[in-house]
Amino acid sequence: MNIVELINKKRTKKILTKDELSFIINGYLNDEIKDYQISALLMAICLNGMTDEEIYDLTNIMLHSGDIIDLSGINKVKVDKHSTGGVGDKTTLIIAPLVASCGVVVPKMSGRSLGHTGGTIDKLESIKGFKTNLSRETFIKQVNDIGVSIISQTGNLVPADKKIYALRDVTGTVESIPLIASSIMSKKLACSADKIVLDVKVGQGALMKNLDDASKLGELMVKIGNNYGVETIAILSNMDQPLGYAIGNGLEVLESIDVLKGNGPSDLVELVIELASHMVSLGKKITFEEAKLEVQTNLNNGLAYQKFEELVNYQHGDINNISISSKVVSIKSNKTGFINKIDALKLGEIVRQLGAGRYHKDDVIDYGVGILLNRKVGDYILDGEELLKVYISNSDIQVQEIFDCFEIIESLDPLKPLIYKVIK
Amino acid sequence: MNIVELINKKRTKKILTKDELSFIINGYLNDEIKDYQISALLMAICLNGMTDEEIYDLTNIMLHSGDIIDLSGINKVKVDKHSTGGVGDKTTLIIAPLVASCGVVVPKMSGRSLGHTGGTIDKLESIKGFKTNLSRETFIKQVNDIGVSIISQTGNLVPADKKIYALRDVTGTVESIPLIASSIMSKKLACSADKIVLDVKVGQGALMKNLDDASKLGELMVKIGNNYGVETIAILSNMDQPLGYAIGNGLEVLESIDVLKGNGPSDLVELVIELASHMVSLGKKITFEEAKLEVQTNLNNGLAYQKFEELVNYQHGDINNISISSKVVSIKSNKTGFINKIDALKLGEIVRQLGAGRYHKDDVIDYGVGILLNRKVGDYILDGEELLKVYISNSDIQVQEIFDCFEIIESLDPLKPLIYKVIK
Repeated sequence: MNIVELINKKRTKKILTKDELSFIINGYLNDEIKDYQISALLMAICLNGMTDEEIYDLTNIMLHSGDIIDLSGINKVKVDKHSTGGVGDKTTLIIAPLVASCGVVVPKMSGRSLGHTGGTIDKLESIKGFKTNLSRETFIKQVNDIGVSIISQTGNLVPADKKIYALRDVTGTVESIPLIASSIMSKKLACSADKIVLDVKVGQGALMKNLDDASKLGELMVKIGNNYGVETIAILSNMDQPLGYAIGNGLEVLESIDVLKGNGPSDLVELVIELASHMVSLGKKITFEEAKLEVQTNLNNGLAYQKFEELVNYQHGDINNISISSKVVSIKSNKTGFINKIDALKLGEIVRQLGAGRYHKDDVIDYGVGILLNRKVGDYILDGEELLKVYISNSDIQVQEIFDCFEIIESLDPLKPLIYKVIK
Repeated sequence: MNIVELINKKRTKKILTKDELSFIINGYLNDEIKDYQISALLMAICLNGMTDEEIYDLTNIMLHSGDIIDLSGINKVKVDKHSTGGVGDKTTLIIAPLVASCGVVVPKMSGRSLGHTGGTIDKLESIKGFKTNLSRETFIKQVNDIGVSIISQTGNLVPADKKIYALRDVTGTVESIPLIASSIMSKKLACSADKIVLDVKVGQGALMKNLDDASKLGELMVKIGNNYGVETIAILSNMDQPLGYAIGNGLEVLESIDVLKGNGPSDLVELVIELASHMVSLGKKITFEEAKLEVQTNLNNGLAYQKFEELVNYQHGDINNISISSKVVSIKSNKTGFINKIDALKLGEIVRQLGAGRYHKDDVIDYGVGILLNRKVGDYILDGEELLKVYISNSDIQVQEIFDCFEIIESLDPLKPLIYKVIK
């Protein structure tokens, strides 16, 4: 086989076989095939697409390029959850203990902040002492003991995806639905869950800007999971504005605790119930309605919060010691009207600049900073009323930049639903 | 400007400005932009194309990436000629002195063999002593003295094309009409001719396999030349079978001398007259018919051959000492019938294997080897009659491989024309 011929094949819209894809991926990992050849191939894939069969093969080859987590020590049905990334998306913090409180085990491996979106691991580390780098044995023991653990991804998981993703990032080849789907699913499948619920974010603050692309991505990931024998469901949810009121690590943990105690912002609660109910339904083989009843009950009777406390205790966190900056600035609206839009992408970037996210891998996160919204899309606000609070440490606040994230006008556009659809 | 954004622009079918193209090409030459970024962009260009304006800009930027030959010392109208490459294509050897014999100056810079096609410089070097690396001053003096000189490309001509072409070669991004056109034309325009005649080869032995693609390439190159202020004409000519009978350096020089003396194979003579007449017409501002009369006259009255002798003498060649191997093997046909097809590509590869071409830049050429056909497409041959002669030195002859280049059957397909069309 010859890499130039294989690139030419994809350029001329022919189909690559599993052996050919294997030759490409393994050759790239061995440095026999060069960056500049893979980037040309990736661009051809961006523009000419891949068949389902090619995508299944690619996912499988990437998945087997490194370690696959051995969770055979856990005897129950394991349910995983993944979000494609949004602003203020703290659902994993709530859902993992909530679902576990319903009797479904959640051995969760999560990531850190990426671009303008936060990461579950960073959020948890805003709880003083919380350990996210447990050994596999400790992780499995904890899941068997209390039904849930959340740790950072360890080991040599899907090295092919790591190498290819880094290249895509600098070659304008990120936006390809087949490449995004196989990247996400190879990592998910390497974590060895039996069932997966995906939260595909759609909108201005998400990677998928429109419902059409998000549907394609969701359908493709569901097909990949099912083809691999892992029952997979995708929820398409709105990411035009931030989820909930809190953006920033410590602030998001506080808001999550609110929800776990039966309170919290309605959009966040609605999405949490939707996702958790699908997970419980899959894990216990009961109907979605039956699962939803259990989920709602456990949010209201304190069991979900109790499970969260157990989780934090097991992982050495001090739930009474969550980083929140004491330097708080209130930003008042300079207009009267309805909030018609909140730019999630820009707001996410502003919070990143405050220190809640990273620009380089080794940047140190400031867990206490962030933004707490006081109003969301659809709300009415008077000139001079509080729009939001900014929690800062050392950085300045660019007030105009913050105002630019809000469109305040006399009449509202029709509100978009929070949950667009469910793909099974 | 940011290279990833520019790649994304081309990926999403937007148009790159001249400043953006300049940033890309110069950044690549300075190693600020990486191979893997350029190859992704090249693939996006292969698949999404370029507008005429983008192609003019790209050609201009490449052209100015290095030296431009200063031919201001030559006071007459300078006419250049370029072939996109075929098998047995020795037209430059004939046309340069022929056109000069009609009073039009031809300061010709030529290349060496590439892939399965030969190179004018290698062919001339099969004449003992022939010098192809003259200084610019000597070159200009010779053109002013006798109207013609043929030298190898020197200096730092179009380094951007050199670097990009090497990358295209290993990334499956060769076959793009905009990239081919700007590559050829940037090199041609750097040679500072006033008029250019292009011979675009079409068919199985050429880069352009069909008339449609060849027409697009021809039209595009004519537009680029004219846009730059250099009157340009493209001839589309057939390259399904080799041109003439001879393939191999010394053998092709002998066949060229035949034509220059008023003899030679009819296809070669027809193409030579067509190309030379256009050059003379452009150079002397006379009609094509008037030019054709002069060209035919000078082939028959010995003036063209006399100019060739002058050229060889000026460049220190010994016209009575041309490398031709003395080891000759006659290959007889094993079938009776009409020769319906001759695979020019395969035959070119066989002659390259004999030692007439290169696989690596530093390979030494065997000037005396090659193939001399005894029959061409349309001819009838009897089992046992000579099909061709092979001139070898040390290598074996793969007889079956040679037979595989010929389709000998009972009835002929309709013959294709030698010259498809002229694009002005």
